[in-house]
Amino acid sequence: MKRFIGIDPGLASVGYGIIETRGGKLVHVAHGCISTDKGEALEARLLAIHTRILALLAEYKPSGGGMEALYFSRNVTSALPVAEAKGVIRLAFALSGVPLREYSPASIKTGVVGDGRAEKEQVQEMVRLILGLKEMPSPDHASDALAAAICRSHDLDLHG
Amino acid sequence: MKRFIGIDPGLASVGYGIIETRGGKLVHVAHGCISTDKGEALEARLLAIHTRILALLAEYKPSGGGMEALYFSRNVTSALPVAEAKGVIRLAFALSGVPLREYSPASIKTGVVGDGRAEKEQVQEMVRLILGLKEMPSPDHASDALAAAICRSHDLDLHG
Repeated sequence: MKRFIGIDPGLASVGYGIIETRGGKLVHVAHGCISTDKGEALEARLLAIHTRILALLAEYKPSGGGMEALYFSRNVTSALPVAEAKGVIRLAFALSGVPLREYSPASIKTGVVGDGRAEKEQVQEMVRLILGLKEMPSPDHASDALAAAICRSHDLDLHG
Repeated sequence: MKRFIGIDPGLASVGYGIIETRGGKLVHVAHGCISTDKGEALEARLLAIHTRILALLAEYKPSGGGMEALYFSRNVTSALPVAEAKGVIRLAFALSGVPLREYSPASIKTGVVGDGRAEKEQVQEMVRLILGLKEMPSPDHASDALAAAICRSHDLDLHG
């Protein structure tokens, strides 16, 4: 049995999803979303994210993590605070000794659906099917995080 | 006596400078540069930066910190890893209970030289004069960090 955690990074919302291998299958363990208050100072929000990620890693003890890489088209200003959040998430993994890999949105789509240009809905539906869930995990951030966790589990199969 | 720390953020090099008020004057306490190895994984580099900043805050116990805001013209890709470094620096301040303020390059120039368009050399020379140093603090990152610390000390005078 191996356990993997996926992260959909953000500042207002960080999605997470935890899965494990059981008898050659991938099974859903947990998912959720860490939300921070826009009214709070950036310091307090980063501290909240870091602390929650540390707690999740301590509770679920995953063998590895997958995080969606930042995708930004125009709004660079909004990408910078998200990058700061990614920094404190990455630090939590480093402090916990859990190796973290990053995947572009396209490689997550390829890893889950087999098509780097798949629609968001297709990815969510495949996440549901792969993990044998009756309902779509919500919110979207959590479902995206589960997709990153699935990618990470494939990666370990390939690379040891 | 109040002590202030200034930070010039980066991933390869983080400059820091510590000053204190003594009899109405600003006095140099320490300065230096935290360097990380490009050959190391991002996780390891962020961990090294975070750990060193925590250690500096524990050693010098400043009342407040000033950090230069990111300035980037074209290269957004290189701004993102620096933003991750800023995240783990900010987290160290939050964990240590030291309030941190950010200053744009122009407001640091205004705060030190009185002119937001001052040349880098003018800023360095004023840092040297204000702190009564015989030589220019080096490297540049450390001198920029001392400038941010000077700004922070002015801010506290104004705002309590």
